[in-house]
Amino acid sequence: MGATAFDHPFLSGLAGDEETSAWFTAEADIRAMLQFEAALARAEAAHDVIPEAAAQAISAACAEFKAGLPALRAATARDGVVVPELVRQLRATAGDASPHVHLGATSQDVIDSSLMLRLKPVAFVFAARLATLELRFGELQQTFGDKPLMGRTRMQAAIPITVADRLRAWSAPFAGYRETLTALRFPLQFGGAAGTLDKLGDKASAVRSSLAQELGLVDIQQWQSQRAVIAEFAGLLTLISGSLGKFGQDVALMAQAGDEIELTGGGGSSAMAHKQNPVAAETLVALARFNATQISAIQHSMVHEQERSGAAWTLEWLVLPQMTIATGAALRLVHELASNISRLGTADA
Amino acid sequence: MGATAFDHPFLSGLAGDEETSAWFTAEADIRAMLQFEAALARAEAAHDVIPEAAAQAISAACAEFKAGLPALRAATARDGVVVPELVRQLRATAGDASPHVHLGATSQDVIDSSLMLRLKPVAFVFAARLATLELRFGELQQTFGDKPLMGRTRMQAAIPITVADRLRAWSAPFAGYRETLTALRFPLQFGGAAGTLDKLGDKASAVRSSLAQELGLVDIQQWQSQRAVIAEFAGLLTLISGSLGKFGQDVALMAQAGDEIELTGGGGSSAMAHKQNPVAAETLVALARFNATQISAIQHSMVHEQERSGAAWTLEWLVLPQMTIATGAALRLVHELASNISRLGTADA
Amino acid sequence: MGATAFDHPFLSGLAGDEETSAWFTAEADIRAMLQFEAALARAEAAHDVIPEAAAQAISAACAEFKAGLPALRAATARDGVVVPELVRQLRATAGDASPHVHLGATSQDVIDSSLMLRLKPVAFVFAARLATLELRFGELQQTFGDKPLMGRTRMQAAIPITVADRLRAWSAPFAGYRETLTALRFPLQFGGAAGTLDKLGDKASAVRSSLAQELGLVDIQQWQSQRAVIAEFAGLLTLISGSLGKFGQDVALMAQAGDEIELTGGGGSSAMAHKQNPVAAETLVALARFNATQISAIQHSMVHEQERSGAAWTLEWLVLPQMTIATGAALRLVHELASNISRLGTADA
Amino acid sequence: MGATAFDHPFLSGLAGDEETSAWFTAEADIRAMLQFEAALARAEAAHDVIPEAAAQAISAACAEFKAGLPALRAATARDGVVVPELVRQLRATAGDASPHVHLGATSQDVIDSSLMLRLKPVAFVFAARLATLELRFGELQQTFGDKPLMGRTRMQAAIPITVADRLRAWSAPFAGYRETLTALRFPLQFGGAAGTLDKLGDKASAVRSSLAQELGLVDIQQWQSQRAVIAEFAGLLTLISGSLGKFGQDVALMAQAGDEIELTGGGGSSAMAHKQNPVAAETLVALARFNATQISAIQHSMVHEQERSGAAWTLEWLVLPQMTIATGAALRLVHELASNISRLGTADA
Repeated sequence: MGATAFDHPFLSGLAGDEETSAWFTAEADIRAMLQFEAALARAEAAHDVIPEAAAQAISAACAEFKAGLPALRAATARDGVVVPELVRQLRATAGDASPHVHLGATSQDVIDSSLMLRLKPVAFVFAARLATLELRFGELQQTFGDKPLMGRTRMQAAIPITVADRLRAWSAPFAGYRETLTALRFPLQFGGAAGTLDKLGDKASAVRSSLAQELGLVDIQQWQSQRAVIAEFAGLLTLISGSLGKFGQDVALMAQAGDEIELTGGGGSSAMAHKQNPVAAETLVALARFNATQISAIQHSMVHEQERSGAAWTLEWLVLPQMTIATGAALRLVHELASNISRLGTADA
Repeated sequence: MGATAFDHPFLSGLAGDEETSAWFTAEADIRAMLQFEAALARAEAAHDVIPEAAAQAISAACAEFKAGLPALRAATARDGVVVPELVRQLRATAGDASPHVHLGATSQDVIDSSLMLRLKPVAFVFAARLATLELRFGELQQTFGDKPLMGRTRMQAAIPITVADRLRAWSAPFAGYRETLTALRFPLQFGGAAGTLDKLGDKASAVRSSLAQELGLVDIQQWQSQRAVIAEFAGLLTLISGSLGKFGQDVALMAQAGDEIELTGGGGSSAMAHKQNPVAAETLVALARFNATQISAIQHSMVHEQERSGAAWTLEWLVLPQMTIATGAALRLVHELASNISRLGTADA
Repeated sequence: MGATAFDHPFLSGLAGDEETSAWFTAEADIRAMLQFEAALARAEAAHDVIPEAAAQAISAACAEFKAGLPALRAATARDGVVVPELVRQLRATAGDASPHVHLGATSQDVIDSSLMLRLKPVAFVFAARLATLELRFGELQQTFGDKPLMGRTRMQAAIPITVADRLRAWSAPFAGYRETLTALRFPLQFGGAAGTLDKLGDKASAVRSSLAQELGLVDIQQWQSQRAVIAEFAGLLTLISGSLGKFGQDVALMAQAGDEIELTGGGGSSAMAHKQNPVAAETLVALARFNATQISAIQHSMVHEQERSGAAWTLEWLVLPQMTIATGAALRLVHELASNISRLGTADA
Repeated sequence: MGATAFDHPFLSGLAGDEETSAWFTAEADIRAMLQFEAALARAEAAHDVIPEAAAQAISAACAEFKAGLPALRAATARDGVVVPELVRQLRATAGDASPHVHLGATSQDVIDSSLMLRLKPVAFVFAARLATLELRFGELQQTFGDKPLMGRTRMQAAIPITVADRLRAWSAPFAGYRETLTALRFPLQFGGAAGTLDKLGDKASAVRSSLAQELGLVDIQQWQSQRAVIAEFAGLLTLISGSLGKFGQDVALMAQAGDEIELTGGGGSSAMAHKQNPVAAETLVALARFNATQISAIQHSMVHEQERSGAAWTLEWLVLPQMTIATGAALRLVHELASNISRLGTADA
């Protein structure tokens, strides 16, 4: 509880985002994994792979399931994935239905699909925040758009522009990001032991299709070793935080220039009572550079060997949740910062 | 001539790609920059910003232009960009039309648009190569698809699959990449000193629109400090080389396993005459990891301050050409490697 | 509590390290920050900057201090650093001594010195683990050193070597890393508002020297904007995890080859009961690649503008704790893995 | 000839460094590889592994060797390394001595040792440049050290400092870097096919020791799969360019502030004749971020599988030469920039 600023007892105030973090707790993950197991049972019952009664029992067991976290932790250390022990615990509560739990699935099906189930609402949250942001920047445009501003290139005064010109450079990318987020398709991962759904025989695609429908995910063939799904999502996060970092850098430079912006609510200093630090602006830069670094690990993870790579897959887990939360935090901070702008542009001469 | 393996006298045999490199020579860049200047003159003449005769003189001067490279190099050292000196040299050959050269434009307009003019054909080349690759993988599928193969997960034998299963994981991403490459829009950059086309007054958008049409680029407002255009292209390159790296890694592992693949044309060793090294496969992994690293620099460049950042923009130049050539090299090598596969899958037991 | 695998309720079993994590909790940080404030008061009293009684009161206040975490979190959100609010809370308990708390210091002095106070014991832990590891590899050498093994280059069988040859490649770097860790010097950071210790006048260096001695840190001039201290430490972590990643990769490849290694305690699969996955080996690779990615962010943080950069400094916080824990986890896992090797090398033919 | 700005016909004026580049040409590499082959022959003759006459003939052949570059390029494409074909060409000129050429060595011995032979003089060049830089900063200190300057923290005016305070932050790291560069040990790589010098029998260490002495390299056991040698060198480069990037960033910010620095020789703009752009300062930032990115690839290369990894090793080649040249360019630019400072600090009020 301190390994990362994103859920650190005090640093998370700066770099965290509770609404996004909520989707990356162990609880949220377990809940989504059980959602998968229950939906799998229902889909398999619908195609007569398991008895309907078993599906009902499994659904009920999932609904009432209480995870034994210490055992999950110990087993993850041993197995590299939480699923074998989670399934064991679930079976222990499923009575006669227990042989029908997790039938034909493998750990990666559960874990990757759980991730998709959680990234989907996150994408909607981010799209909604971008929409709000567009409104806020529209207000800034209305209030300050025609104020004069010195255009600056290569860190030097260039020619006079207006606040509207710079506002456009800041906000122009938002609509595109919002549309891309909204259009994202989150696919089901379902392949079984080695991607062939070997245990489901000729019912494999029918079960997969029903399972996707149950879960509200897109039905595509397994992508267990094709990680562009993850890399494209992470790439989009990095673009978003990158554009917000440009805004943050500009605000920090305007704050230094002194007469181009006025912010309310800036940070205090332990040594200098008079200072108003552009803390949110600087943090936007830090978060942009954080994601610009992390995307590299995700791209390395595309070198995902054979039918499933423990190494490449684990690397994704070490990085993707934080990239998502960092983006959420950036979206939170940009809104705060844009709302704290009480003046933009220099005084009319 | 050695700083990078990509155009190194002998290492380029391994890591280079002549067809792609050709778009990143100084000559190709200058040619595209002159194409911009000539098209600008024509567009400005069409809207009565400069005389028609001046446009014709400038077009002619561009067509016959011989660059003085030592002076370009010296000036780039001083100015950080080649354009002021290039324009000076061009004006020196344009006679009476010289005051009309480069009117209303700035260095970034010329350099970014030159890049777009060259990335556009590169994208088509890559799309065409992917199409060829899809055919080659289709052949492999026809010839070896039903051969048995041991499915491997977490570096361990899992359950038997077929060659077709693994071929699908390798080739499934190609069609999507090809379609994305084909659908890419390459925008004109045209903003003038600080992005406002201040010198063109109320003719600014008309000139910009004509200029875009002349150049075959998409007409959008200037994006000089919004670098998602670059980052999205680089991201796509990284996805492509990442998927090819997964293929290379798998082939190298199959070659080690010994009985799963047979390659012709493998590399020799200076110490061991008996060896057949899977050189192209290893190089695909190296190129994937190269791009997975470089994408980080491009993403950092999105923190592009104010109306133009010398630092962030220069960083793009240090990285993007090599990412593109690395992707070209990967596409060349994957084709060579796929063509050298003379057997896939284990013998039918 | 889930943002990172390193302190995640179940993933930390795989990727975490409790002994290392303990130094990065909010509690450990606050404890070290109070240690700084108490030592500062004593050092200032020793040089008659504040009254001796005040120093005693401040020491007592620090000893009994109970942090109000919600207020710390809210203030960090506003100020970008926790220190102003921490000092406010501390002053509220220091009675008449309160004006003497934190005298002449600034947030960065407290935060950077707290980090040094905690990295120092971590370095000793890591050195000790490396020493144990050297012993374990010495045992493997004694037991299996003369067994035959196929030397492999470029993923191909090359010529026969012995287990001793490969053991040497694995363990040769350990002694050097241990010695470097042991020889590391952890410096005090103490500079005041802008690095000049302006409030301490001609007593500045004397106070700094006493403060360093009190804290067991090395006395050097402030390094608040010279971040090589951090980058060198992070670089060493990356070298260590990199060498351990090479070991992990080799073990995973040997496990695939089938007859070169025997491991006890490998991980189970939810779909295939027969499998023994080399989970620890794969995780070592993931941790190596994790740190190989993160070091980039730390190096970017060296571009630390002016007397203190909020952006570059915050970026360090987002990355360094995890790099350290990842290294601790790698050291834990390599020991576990080396201890689980029950056979190395192929059978004597 | 354009793939990288570092040896681009005109961009190299900005980002290149001829003195450093000279060590990375194909010619310099071949020269050093032949130096290795000649020294190997002499060392083997000294220990009666090959006849003395053969050693003399090989030395003579190396001295007169003219490489056939097209064949080297074609062979590198096939073999992944240049050495088999280089040795074939050398043997073709060595007459009766040809069976004694390259005896007991492998490609990696030649390539890694060639690199060490060239990095060693580069390190001395860099150390000398740092020494000159220290003198230049000493002059700045003498001339401007007591001028007032506004200390700035978190992009805000903090308290007044002097130019000397900031000069110290800029130049303090130089001496340490210089000393580290001077103390670096460049080791011979000599291991034969799989690192065991199998063909040299009980004369292996004696030959290795003589070879090291002949080449002026340090005699250590082979490090072919232990890449800390490379990673530590690259890490040092990144620290150096990082500290210079901090200087560049500060100068660019001072140039924006307007009254804190005066530079001569700044760059011109194609659109605005009045501007003086701090081009060298921005380029220092770009080069720092370039190396901060590349170091990641080098660290990934430490996951170097088995006795020799084609993938990890090739990745080093794609990155290390440019990192070295980037550092050389940064050292060139910082000297130019420091020499162009005609005023530092604000006017005495």
